[in-house]
Amino acid sequence: MKRVYNFNPGPATLPLEVLQEAQAEFLNFDNSGMSIIEISHRAKPYEKIHNQTKADILELMGLGEEYEVLFIQGGASLQFAMIPLNFATKENPGSYILSGTFSSNAYKEAANLGVGKIAASTKDENFCRVPTQAELNIDKNSAYLHICNNNTIYGTEFHYIPETGNIPLFADMSSDMLSRPWDFKKFDLIYAGVQKNLGPAGVVVVVAKKSLIEKSLETLPTMLRYDTFYKKNSLYNTPPAFSIYMVGKVVKWIKNCGGLAEMSKRNSKKAEILYAAIDDSNGFYKGHATKDSRSFMNVTFRLPNEDLENKFVAQALENNLSGVKGHRSVGGMRASIYNAMTIEGVEILADFMQKFQRQNS
Amino acid sequence: MKRVYNFNPGPATLPLEVLQEAQAEFLNFDNSGMSIIEISHRAKPYEKIHNQTKADILELMGLGEEYEVLFIQGGASLQFAMIPLNFATKENPGSYILSGTFSSNAYKEAANLGVGKIAASTKDENFCRVPTQAELNIDKNSAYLHICNNNTIYGTEFHYIPETGNIPLFADMSSDMLSRPWDFKKFDLIYAGVQKNLGPAGVVVVVAKKSLIEKSLETLPTMLRYDTFYKKNSLYNTPPAFSIYMVGKVVKWIKNCGGLAEMSKRNSKKAEILYAAIDDSNGFYKGHATKDSRSFMNVTFRLPNEDLENKFVAQALENNLSGVKGHRSVGGMRASIYNAMTIEGVEILADFMQKFQRQNS
Repeated sequence: MKRVYNFNPGPATLPLEVLQEAQAEFLNFDNSGMSIIEISHRAKPYEKIHNQTKADILELMGLGEEYEVLFIQGGASLQFAMIPLNFATKENPGSYILSGTFSSNAYKEAANLGVGKIAASTKDENFCRVPTQAELNIDKNSAYLHICNNNTIYGTEFHYIPETGNIPLFADMSSDMLSRPWDFKKFDLIYAGVQKNLGPAGVVVVVAKKSLIEKSLETLPTMLRYDTFYKKNSLYNTPPAFSIYMVGKVVKWIKNCGGLAEMSKRNSKKAEILYAAIDDSNGFYKGHATKDSRSFMNVTFRLPNEDLENKFVAQALENNLSGVKGHRSVGGMRASIYNAMTIEGVEILADFMQKFQRQNS
Repeated sequence: MKRVYNFNPGPATLPLEVLQEAQAEFLNFDNSGMSIIEISHRAKPYEKIHNQTKADILELMGLGEEYEVLFIQGGASLQFAMIPLNFATKENPGSYILSGTFSSNAYKEAANLGVGKIAASTKDENFCRVPTQAELNIDKNSAYLHICNNNTIYGTEFHYIPETGNIPLFADMSSDMLSRPWDFKKFDLIYAGVQKNLGPAGVVVVVAKKSLIEKSLETLPTMLRYDTFYKKNSLYNTPPAFSIYMVGKVVKWIKNCGGLAEMSKRNSKKAEILYAAIDDSNGFYKGHATKDSRSFMNVTFRLPNEDLENKFVAQALENNLSGVKGHRSVGGMRASIYNAMTIEGVEILADFMQKFQRQNS
């Protein structure tokens, strides 16, 4: 069977050459006579990859020595809890911009601990856009402002960086990390479940200011303290080595392609093609996101009715286009076009959209 | 380069045929046109593996419907915290048998929360054996008694199951899970980081009585509640799919080999060969564990002096025997001989030990 065009929201498509390289060396990593999944995490060949991956991530983000990269398990969902546990108190609560499901879940964890505040929300508009700077109402005692940079389910993305004054800015970048140049220096803590743009599920990349994470509350369990990961180079216990190894390969692939500028060029082109297919459809396809909040990673749209939507999914699959069904919160379609999705794949999807419209109008 | 004999304590050697199968289908999982690491965790082909792996684990353990299998990230170290957070209180503390590093770490997490008690310890003997039943002093109000079934670092293993009366019995089986038939029904909660006997690092298998985990405290963060994993079939958020997929293959391999009885036969044979090499060495090799506590998974021994120990490690490597250096807490050597280590590999190591002794006595 030939390779499909995989528009799944995550786990998601990865660069074919990266997969091929991993496959080729799967039984003999770095001439060790072992698989990467059999080698000790204390062995030099693994350590080399671990540290190189950290360095490459910082280099791509244009960040220096004041930042540290951590590898933590548990998904972004565990970060939703670790962040308020480590940084928020009743006096200095965590403030949250609610712009979709995951930012709302992040807020809920803080609220459950009694340390969460809402700085803005577009829930009443079914999260069809992200709040604007003017709409932000940030508690001046906030320990941080938390945003979700790209909303996978709703297909919206921040195209500005919130101004917070002296309040540290935290961001869940699970679905757009390393997809575009961005002023990462304005952020104090960034995290991303890697299974969208960066690798196989099983690890979260946290990029944070060292000054923020060098000391955690000693009353917190070891594995919930950022300083455990910081002090032990994310090797306090056995790391999810295969996921990190694959992230290392993907990050190297991004560098070899030309870095974030090139990723952004490709991703803009892909988004442009799909949004044009929506905008030029005379209303047959209706985008969920307002134009100023449109995501470059997840393109969400509806068809005239659910029967047509089901037919679209089925016929897309017959045309080798997989994973285009949208999330139930929005309905309709969602095409996730992360870094590794090719322009060719997107062109084929756009052609299919036009053909489907002609046949069903 | 040819495949080495890998005696690392974890991540550890895996069955060659399992690795080959994973390699062969790495670009096209189940004819999906995607890699296993690209496929949605909500897709049927993934779900099938997820559920089959759970069923196979219960079948191998001889456990029925009253038990549930959970897949949780964060390593055994996160379980050390989740267990007291979910089950222990000041009135009903968690009791711990200290028999090595990891059981001590588990206790420390409970103690840090103010809910830990020590039921027995062999720390004063540098953990050269596990405490006996007669030595146990279990607080009668204990929420549970926690043991570490096999002590990877010290090379000791429980060869009896502690009697606890009505107190639930919990066990960290990270380093001997599915290595031998055992009366698993006597346990209420069992967990194992998979990177020793079961697969690649990145997931912990938890096997617990449903009645124990069906309801957690609502004040706990979502990802620290066992009921989150139970109610959502360990699919509340994206699971570490590749690790689970590999565990599924390893578990199937165990079944195809003949199950736990056959594993135990092979593991006993391997342990016998190495312990004979120690016992027949006229004191050149000195085992760390007392004979009644010897591990079938990790064989620890010292040589007459550190120079010889360093020479042993170096020459072993030249003979394609990797990972035999012991942990600094014990010093000397450690040969980890998990399920996937072949009898041939162990025979080659025993031959090398004899040759090395002749050349250095």
